[in-house]
Amino acid sequence: MAIRTYVCGLDAAVNIIGGKWKVLIIWAIGDQRRRFGELRRQVPGISEKVLFQHLREMEANDLVVREEFDEVPARVEYSLTELGHSLSAALQPLNDWGSQHMQRTGTAVACSYS
Amino acid sequence: MAIRTYVCGLDAAVNIIGGKWKVLIIWAIGDQRRRFGELRRQVPGISEKVLFQHLREMEANDLVVREEFDEVPARVEYSLTELGHSLSAALQPLNDWGSQHMQRTGTAVACSYS
Repeated sequence: MAIRTYVCGLDAAVNIIGGKWKVLIIWAIGDQRRRFGELRRQVPGISEKVLFQHLREMEANDLVVREEFDEVPARVEYSLTELGHSLSAALQPLNDWGSQHMQRTGTAVACSYS
Repeated sequence: MAIRTYVCGLDAAVNIIGGKWKVLIIWAIGDQRRRFGELRRQVPGISEKVLFQHLREMEANDLVVREEFDEVPARVEYSLTELGHSLSAALQPLNDWGSQHMQRTGTAVACSYS
């Protein structure tokens, strides 16, 4: 495994998070168990392929657990691991900052989840 | 001006922050007044062009102030605005999370600024 050297914790966090989608997926899962379709609706603009790919990477990074239930039709649910929950908590202040910024600039808000 | 609708504060924050560079630039400036060359050294891997472009966008978004001093050679310093400081504070828990994650996974750390 290649060892990357980070300049700070933020660098490491940003490297795990990648682009904007993972942050929004973590936020959309929150304390819930979410099905794939629910997540797609709650992260507007994300494609099925990109959501699937990110969820797989997040499973590999121990942020998300995928559970498959032996039902017909098959039911698959995603939830946060302990590490995922700790990342979600660390994102709370950034969420609050963004909400304040939206108020400042008068941007419309339609928060579908808290 | 186009009004974008955000699904949550985090969405808005991520939209302002853009990719990984702005987060790292904000963190590198911190409470200091930084010259361009200093910032380049403190954000390893960033090109001159990308740093310049991001600093301009951050000025436009009221996150950063650029001050030019009438000296020979010309001296230009960047510092955070009040909004930039508030974003920096909101990023602290994410930095802490990243540091803990690095410890967890045993990744080498070389934090050039705190």
